[in-house]
Amino acid sequence: MPLGQRQGDNGEARYCGAEAAFSSDIQQSLSFALGGSFDFIVAPLTDPVYRPSKAQQDSEGSAIVPPFSGSDLVLSPSQWSSHIVGKISTWLDLDSPDALMRSDSETTLKQEAGWASHLSLQACLLPTPRPLSCGNYARCVNQVLQGLSNMQLWLRIPLVSPAMEAAQGTENEDLLFLERDEITGRFKNDTWEWWNMFRTLCEHHSQLSVALDITAELPAPNAIKRWIGEPLRAAILHTSAFLTNKRGYPCLSKQHQNLITTLFTHNVQIVISGDCLHQVDEPPPPSTDANSNGAEDVYHAKHPLKSYLEYVSHLYRKMDPPTEQERFEMGYRDFLQAPLQPLMDNLEAQTYETFEKDSTKYSQYQKAVRAALLDRVPDRKVATTTTVLMVVGAGRGPLVRASLQAAEETGRKLRVYAVEKNPNAVVTLHSLIKLEGWEDVVTVISCDMRRWNAPEQADILVSELLGSFGDNELSPECLDGAQRFLKKDGISIPSSYTSFIGPITASKLHNDVKSYADLAHFETAYVVKFHSVARLAPPQPVFTFDHPNLETLMDNKRYVKLKFELSPDTGSALVHGFGGYFDAVLYKDVHLGIEPSTATPNMFSWFAIFFPLRKPIYIPAGSVLELHFWRCVGPTKVWYEWAVTAPSVSPVHNVNGRSYWVGL
Amino acid sequence: MPLGQRQGDNGEARYCGAEAAFSSDIQQSLSFALGGSFDFIVAPLTDPVYRPSKAQQDSEGSAIVPPFSGSDLVLSPSQWSSHIVGKISTWLDLDSPDALMRSDSETTLKQEAGWASHLSLQACLLPTPRPLSCGNYARCVNQVLQGLSNMQLWLRIPLVSPAMEAAQGTENEDLLFLERDEITGRFKNDTWEWWNMFRTLCEHHSQLSVALDITAELPAPNAIKRWIGEPLRAAILHTSAFLTNKRGYPCLSKQHQNLITTLFTHNVQIVISGDCLHQVDEPPPPSTDANSNGAEDVYHAKHPLKSYLEYVSHLYRKMDPPTEQERFEMGYRDFLQAPLQPLMDNLEAQTYETFEKDSTKYSQYQKAVRAALLDRVPDRKVATTTTVLMVVGAGRGPLVRASLQAAEETGRKLRVYAVEKNPNAVVTLHSLIKLEGWEDVVTVISCDMRRWNAPEQADILVSELLGSFGDNELSPECLDGAQRFLKKDGISIPSSYTSFIGPITASKLHNDVKSYADLAHFETAYVVKFHSVARLAPPQPVFTFDHPNLETLMDNKRYVKLKFELSPDTGSALVHGFGGYFDAVLYKDVHLGIEPSTATPNMFSWFAIFFPLRKPIYIPAGSVLELHFWRCVGPTKVWYEWAVTAPSVSPVHNVNGRSYWVGL
Repeated sequence: MPLGQRQGDNGEARYCGAEAAFSSDIQQSLSFALGGSFDFIVAPLTDPVYRPSKAQQDSEGSAIVPPFSGSDLVLSPSQWSSHIVGKISTWLDLDSPDALMRSDSETTLKQEAGWASHLSLQACLLPTPRPLSCGNYARCVNQVLQGLSNMQLWLRIPLVSPAMEAAQGTENEDLLFLERDEITGRFKNDTWEWWNMFRTLCEHHSQLSVALDITAELPAPNAIKRWIGEPLRAAILHTSAFLTNKRGYPCLSKQHQNLITTLFTHNVQIVISGDCLHQVDEPPPPSTDANSNGAEDVYHAKHPLKSYLEYVSHLYRKMDPPTEQERFEMGYRDFLQAPLQPLMDNLEAQTYETFEKDSTKYSQYQKAVRAALLDRVPDRKVATTTTVLMVVGAGRGPLVRASLQAAEETGRKLRVYAVEKNPNAVVTLHSLIKLEGWEDVVTVISCDMRRWNAPEQADILVSELLGSFGDNELSPECLDGAQRFLKKDGISIPSSYTSFIGPITASKLHNDVKSYADLAHFETAYVVKFHSVARLAPPQPVFTFDHPNLETLMDNKRYVKLKFELSPDTGSALVHGFGGYFDAVLYKDVHLGIEPSTATPNMFSWFAIFFPLRKPIYIPAGSVLELHFWRCVGPTKVWYEWAVTAPSVSPVHNVNGRSYWVGL
Repeated sequence: MPLGQRQGDNGEARYCGAEAAFSSDIQQSLSFALGGSFDFIVAPLTDPVYRPSKAQQDSEGSAIVPPFSGSDLVLSPSQWSSHIVGKISTWLDLDSPDALMRSDSETTLKQEAGWASHLSLQACLLPTPRPLSCGNYARCVNQVLQGLSNMQLWLRIPLVSPAMEAAQGTENEDLLFLERDEITGRFKNDTWEWWNMFRTLCEHHSQLSVALDITAELPAPNAIKRWIGEPLRAAILHTSAFLTNKRGYPCLSKQHQNLITTLFTHNVQIVISGDCLHQVDEPPPPSTDANSNGAEDVYHAKHPLKSYLEYVSHLYRKMDPPTEQERFEMGYRDFLQAPLQPLMDNLEAQTYETFEKDSTKYSQYQKAVRAALLDRVPDRKVATTTTVLMVVGAGRGPLVRASLQAAEETGRKLRVYAVEKNPNAVVTLHSLIKLEGWEDVVTVISCDMRRWNAPEQADILVSELLGSFGDNELSPECLDGAQRFLKKDGISIPSSYTSFIGPITASKLHNDVKSYADLAHFETAYVVKFHSVARLAPPQPVFTFDHPNLETLMDNKRYVKLKFELSPDTGSALVHGFGGYFDAVLYKDVHLGIEPSTATPNMFSWFAIFFPLRKPIYIPAGSVLELHFWRCVGPTKVWYEWAVTAPSVSPVHNVNGRSYWVGL
């Protein structure tokens, strides 16, 4: 029974499972858990005493059937696939020094994975690997992964290493935190390192994901955060993680609650595991949930983990419902979109429609025009002065409207030129002007601003040519071209904009890019609504463009070298690429942007931009990431190149704009 | 005029150049050098005072022609391409903090490279990059590389960093050796690191190579050795590197001589550079070279670097001529060959022909059979005992011959079965037996040894099924199959074999594999005569197979984890893959093999085997390389998988034998 229902939310996270012991009667195990309101169980597929080498000796040569938990007929196909996560035998040790143990483990792993696949299970839980010594285990899992159809393999990783958990609060803590493996040099007690080595050996296979064990101790918030960018499918919440409330019931610390809520919003399924440590007396307490059904409770009470499930369900139901913006964005989360090429292509009506709905954006423009008009025309000159305002890239007219409203508010007279190169948008623009009765004030110019011969000079030049990365839709080139019809002391709105960039963990995006199976897609930027993405360091400014451009030699080529330091409590991390954003100064203190720390609220015109790395880069805890970023300009196109030189060196991406460029 | 002529040697190394200063009359510069017996000059293409930004200001808007050293007409096309290496302006500083300097440098680099390309020069010499801060320089060179047709770019790198050279012999030396760059963590004074960062940014482009500056100080022998695996095209030998002999003439230290000789054999061109520091009085000394022409000498004496050239020429001519084996192998050097698949395919006559010529190999076999016969049949039983010897995989008969000769030598009686699956080889075998009159002793069996029903049990089983990596042509599987007709106390020759492996730098091989532009070729092993390959650590044993196989459960699957430590004086290095070898015990102390430290001399049947890495792995000085190697066995094929886990983690290569396998 799902934990609850939230508007617009159809994620897997609303299902909760229980970890179960081996039973030769899996049907009974499942009934018991379903009866206790769990949605699924994580259960071993073979008897834990089974060892292939032993069985082979006993069988004297005849083929061995492993002691599975019943035949495939004991459950229906849909029961197997919706309610059972297979638990691969925990005695497996593929990196044991003992060759027989390794061989038994390999045989069993392949038999169990093969059986799970035969049953069409959605996932199997793999036992935790040896810390930083998982070569043979990873090789075997990698072999299995190549042949899987849809099944996921969840690698079980403790969120806190047992050694760190034991040392918590003692003087050994820091020592353990910094301890490095002798051979690999990696941080032995950072369990993320265990995961990272394993999945790198398996080449980031998209069907290999993580199940995190959550116990009483939690790592630092930043260390938790980096997991959000990893392929996290399940969290195994141990009963030992729970505190006890006044009435004897299990509850979680604030930090644990936050973690669980974060997991819910990132579609991570919870599995409850362990012995019941809270003996709650019957009858059950008065439920806080109006929907709870007394008759059912009697039966449910039998499951020893039921009170934990109830608490998790309570956490789920008390989450805030998604906002309107969140609901709009949900369909776009972590989905790669090609950036617009507005200079080369004409936008479609639907695109205009979407962007025009972004009222926050136009109200910022209106504020900026208002302030510019007040500065430009003092009150005593209102009657005698007409300000010439040109909207370059007027589209279907939203900036014309915002400008006229600003004029009305300030009582300033305006003559507006609306310049638009898309002839289809011009049709709508004409009809808007007629409809609104703006014929005397607004002149429509169907022309590319870079080629228009303006009949007079403008006081104010208004444009909305910004892409997610600021200059990436070639606003600098357009406005440099247009500024020849701006008065010497004229104002450009926006007056400047800056791009920002920061390293991210984004395994889903990496795999989506990889699935194109070519180089070009790894050298292309994508517009993405980041969701299961971990920002590893605050974004830093990249390129700034000022308008009008007062340099004698206009040059929009740029180069920066940026150093990112991950917060020391993050631990090590993997960088799949970079998240790009912008912030624009429309006029003086009126700004507009998506840079996370200063983002304009309630604005949906821009998602972030994602610059991938061809090979993800491992960042050991405490090391610096050095990024080089170039904006290159050729006769017919503009493009970016990027490269990393620390802690390791990447090739320069997108040489000569071979894979990705914006046409002039 | 070439340095000399050696038999079978047609390399570039016999041409020697001189570095020249800028001259607006390059024709005159060239004549002067050619007159001094140099083959080419390394000369600047533009006046060093040229700066594009300055020129642009002066030119007042008209297009700028850089002050090149004459038009393309001053030399003939063949003169340009055979005698001129362009020297890119040394004032360039693309990683300067000064934006104008960067911009001028970029413009000039592109102009000069464009001009050199227009002239069809074979190479241009690029100035030395800033240590570990070469992002923008590398990006620019990378852009240039994409558009080049055939021209090479030689990046100039000092063999010893100026700081290390200055500190040589002082107490600062060790400190500087260990000093790391703050951001990248790399060794600042190891100039190999400068090169490695640059070429990694340029993605190992095959037209980017190294020109090493050689001065008076040399690094440790191991530090020099790693350069042999790099794309080394030129060495710029400074006059300051020379000592002075009794007669006042320049000469080189023993270490320098060894280095230059090594460079000659690896096809590295020498360029002499610097001021003349040895004022040798006229007339020239009596030449040691019988070919020298007195009339020419008068003219040559004018060139200030002539005495250095003469010394280098002397070094070249005193090199030992290549041995017969070297001449045989020359055509195979660093050339990728697919390993044989003798089980699935039948060898061609030519292949038999080549291998049968390897007399060393068969004399080792003869020794082994002799020793086995003596052990098996004591003198007193000679008359009454006939030893049954089976040659499995007899081919066209060389092992039959070696066995019969051993019998003759020892006076032992022999009954031989020659088992061969290739029906074409059987034809030859039959006629050999007739020709030699062996009909009474040798029975030919045209059959796969794994399927043959032998009429009796053998005392000795002789085979030559070994590949470069020992077991890679499936000798274990064949002999396991054949041993059912070996007596319980019978002898297998070979009685065991072990594969060996070690990390190598092999940029040429890496680029050859890369040129296939697919994954499969990076997961395939190749047979290669290693030449421009640096062995970074001694090879270590991998898998051993014993015959007869006495295990109750025969299992030819294997797994090892190996740790390689580079000698501390090597510095950092790049691993492109692994060199594989084998050593076989034929019988008791008679062995056969290609493992470098114990290789059987004068044997040419096997070259090494090369296991590539998909991405070369950087090994910082002092770190350990951890390699995992698996031999996997399936129902129809055998394959290897391999992965590195330290100092960084690679994906597992060749999962499930998807790219490379040997059919059973």
